[in-house]
Amino acid sequence: MSFAKLDAYCHSLSALEHALAILGVDEATAMAPGGGESRAEAMASLSGMLHRQATDPKLQDWIEAAKAESLDDAQSVAVAEFERSYINMTCLPAEFVERRIRTSMRSEQLWRNARPNGDWDGFRPALEGVVDLVREEAAIRAEVLKLTPYDALMEQYDPGNRTKDITPVFTELKVFLVDFLPQALAAQAEHHATRPLKALSGEYPVERQKALGEAMMEAIGFDMAHGSLSISDHPFCGGVPSDVRMTTRYRTDEFLPALMGILHETGHGLYEQNLPKDWAHWLSGKARGMSIHESQSLFVEKQIGRNPAFWRFALPHVAKHLGEDWAIDDMLQHVHQVRRGKIRVDADEVTYPLHVILRYELEQDLLARRIEVRDLPEAWDAKMLEYLGISTIDDPANGPMQDVHWPSGAFGYFPSYTLGALMAAQQWAAITRTHPEVDAEIAGGDFGTLIDWRRKNIWQRASMGSTPEILRKATGENLNPAHFIAHLQARYGQ
Amino acid sequence: MSFAKLDAYCHSLSALEHALAILGVDEATAMAPGGGESRAEAMASLSGMLHRQATDPKLQDWIEAAKAESLDDAQSVAVAEFERSYINMTCLPAEFVERRIRTSMRSEQLWRNARPNGDWDGFRPALEGVVDLVREEAAIRAEVLKLTPYDALMEQYDPGNRTKDITPVFTELKVFLVDFLPQALAAQAEHHATRPLKALSGEYPVERQKALGEAMMEAIGFDMAHGSLSISDHPFCGGVPSDVRMTTRYRTDEFLPALMGILHETGHGLYEQNLPKDWAHWLSGKARGMSIHESQSLFVEKQIGRNPAFWRFALPHVAKHLGEDWAIDDMLQHVHQVRRGKIRVDADEVTYPLHVILRYELEQDLLARRIEVRDLPEAWDAKMLEYLGISTIDDPANGPMQDVHWPSGAFGYFPSYTLGALMAAQQWAAITRTHPEVDAEIAGGDFGTLIDWRRKNIWQRASMGSTPEILRKATGENLNPAHFIAHLQARYGQ
Repeated sequence: MSFAKLDAYCHSLSALEHALAILGVDEATAMAPGGGESRAEAMASLSGMLHRQATDPKLQDWIEAAKAESLDDAQSVAVAEFERSYINMTCLPAEFVERRIRTSMRSEQLWRNARPNGDWDGFRPALEGVVDLVREEAAIRAEVLKLTPYDALMEQYDPGNRTKDITPVFTELKVFLVDFLPQALAAQAEHHATRPLKALSGEYPVERQKALGEAMMEAIGFDMAHGSLSISDHPFCGGVPSDVRMTTRYRTDEFLPALMGILHETGHGLYEQNLPKDWAHWLSGKARGMSIHESQSLFVEKQIGRNPAFWRFALPHVAKHLGEDWAIDDMLQHVHQVRRGKIRVDADEVTYPLHVILRYELEQDLLARRIEVRDLPEAWDAKMLEYLGISTIDDPANGPMQDVHWPSGAFGYFPSYTLGALMAAQQWAAITRTHPEVDAEIAGGDFGTLIDWRRKNIWQRASMGSTPEILRKATGENLNPAHFIAHLQARYGQ
Repeated sequence: MSFAKLDAYCHSLSALEHALAILGVDEATAMAPGGGESRAEAMASLSGMLHRQATDPKLQDWIEAAKAESLDDAQSVAVAEFERSYINMTCLPAEFVERRIRTSMRSEQLWRNARPNGDWDGFRPALEGVVDLVREEAAIRAEVLKLTPYDALMEQYDPGNRTKDITPVFTELKVFLVDFLPQALAAQAEHHATRPLKALSGEYPVERQKALGEAMMEAIGFDMAHGSLSISDHPFCGGVPSDVRMTTRYRTDEFLPALMGILHETGHGLYEQNLPKDWAHWLSGKARGMSIHESQSLFVEKQIGRNPAFWRFALPHVAKHLGEDWAIDDMLQHVHQVRRGKIRVDADEVTYPLHVILRYELEQDLLARRIEVRDLPEAWDAKMLEYLGISTIDDPANGPMQDVHWPSGAFGYFPSYTLGALMAAQQWAAITRTHPEVDAEIAGGDFGTLIDWRRKNIWQRASMGSTPEILRKATGENLNPAHFIAHLQARYGQ
């Protein structure tokens, strides 16, 4: 029986994925400094093994045969998702894949050296090479998938996301934000004038911050029997659903960055821990994609973690672990701070979407050859001035050179961040519509309603539907920016 | 070219071994408690992948073709070692391998439950099943390898070790030890009468013990850029040569067990770290086998770590890290303690070989059907009385049920422990013959002569020769118990 053969095959693929996930975590958290070379060699070899096994030509026959078998709904969905991935993985010629990896690796290395010096002219030829390849890849994928080139790229990160649905949403959001940002900044200035921002600095030993972080993780639903929190230079949430490895980094003079980082990664971790176990080895049982994953991390970080109700619950824990008794208003001024800035990763929830929309627009312009790489500094600067009122023309390092995505060839990825923020707000709105009591529950340290809703509507649905389908089933409507806009207005409008 | 094909293939096999090694370390040191089930599944799947790849029938043709190519010496040795392993791995029918794994896993589980209760009668049928399979396995291997059945089993752990060479050595050692043990105990009693044993207890925080252990590891030659020391319930030395993961466990009321454990594992670690890098992916570039590995750990633990010269160097470090200033004679009384006892793993270097020789003899008796499993309690007791003057007849849990080796089917493994001790003494004798200054160097914290000699004569030779060949090349003679006997006489005789 072909479904049974595929089922066994998925176990084998999952074992390699498991190994790669744990080797990656180990590299970031435990590996000796001199172990990198042989680790890289082992991981490259295992990745190659995984790719060869996942794209084995015999699978095409197995998929066809399995589709002809009498399958129940979950089995049909599993085979369909397997086929979707198989087509996406096999549609590029091997020669092209090798050329693409070589080019983007070289470009990324070059970028790491060129960025600190803001050496745009030195970096530009490498980026031009990457953009040429991305155009080629998008064309091949578009042909196979019967999608527009940019949609074919987004499909790798968020199956089902289409520019025809996203562009109107982003446009509405952009128009709102360009108008709203000065209002939010003015409101903030007024607050700060009456209640000056109080510094949250002190001496916070790592072990105490870790204990605080773990207390918050557990309260919010993280299962410590199936995961842990450790330290790495770049915080991440990795591992496998049965053993979710979260990391953070600590500064001993302030605690808020680590704590907010832990909340963010806890959102990713909850999603992984609560995926349906019976389908863990099939793609249909794995996390859906970048934007839904980001909606889960942002749900915890922004919808829960920057909610005044959360701080009513959390402040006594902060006091207990760190010995500091903050007033809630002083804390909220910090977690609700808004700032114009050049750097996406440092942006707050009001300005962040403008950074993303800028990239979303420029990526499509590049793909459609409406602009070329040489035009980027001016195009970037023009949009930064228009959206955020900041010029980057003299500072390419903090303009079009700031992100690793383009040097590494990851076009079509950026929208996921803001789609995640929109979806998180839309999920929050759906929950509070039927459960207006959640704020009170959160203030009392009870996250059960939030967990149950997300488990049933997001986590357990895994990849058993496209990104828009998952959202629609969960919230009863298509992607709707009104919820995020209302959320920003309520939190930052006055 | 077939050698080149094998070379690439070895890289791929090594990647799977790398993954399994790190997954194993991670399981013991970092995995969340609930992660075990999916880890076991992933590791079983990867082990199966590795076994299938390593026993792929096409390799037979590749090996033959490579042997016909014009190869240099190192390449020829690499292919020969690959073929040796291939024959050993492929000589058992798949049906038999499955039956053997099933039987020994069930027996090992049963043993874990039966041992705490000393339930010999409950455990015996399982052990009988294992012994039947081991007899069957030994017969198959003997036929293929043209060896006696017991030699064919030892060949899995130490290629080239043969009973015809080992039995006379073990007999000589046994005769010596049975006579020597009472003398050593009498000499010890006399010492303790004039200088009573001083307790080494106190309050030693884990971080301080770890710092002391790491200082000793580094002094002895362990490269902290390619390895680390962490904590696990059962100390081990794992990982990969480029990243050797040592673990230990600590008690805070005494420091000597952890420190001696660290020294032992450091010996294993040094061997792994100093294997020839160019051949790291070929078997000929990996550690030779159990007895040479054990000779390296015992070299550091016994020849260096229980040497008075070492303690002249180490005591100031102990004082610095733990704040305790021991007199060297008090310390030596501890590290040179001799005790008759039932338990192999608790034995000292005088009594340990008697435990091993007992098992070596009984394993051969079982294999040759001179005794059956039902005879073991009496046979064990008789030998314990003869060799160590202790009866175990009423205490099977600490008699023939004490080790995991037999329940898991590992027959032919025990001799490696004592062969390691003999080889360590023989290596030490070879070094001091030409370098009488090493004791003075050790006392001054200089381990360079010892490191250089072992790197050149043991570590860099990896598996480029059989176990006896490696020893002969390194020391200029065959296995010779005189060195170990002289070592015991000098350390414990007066």
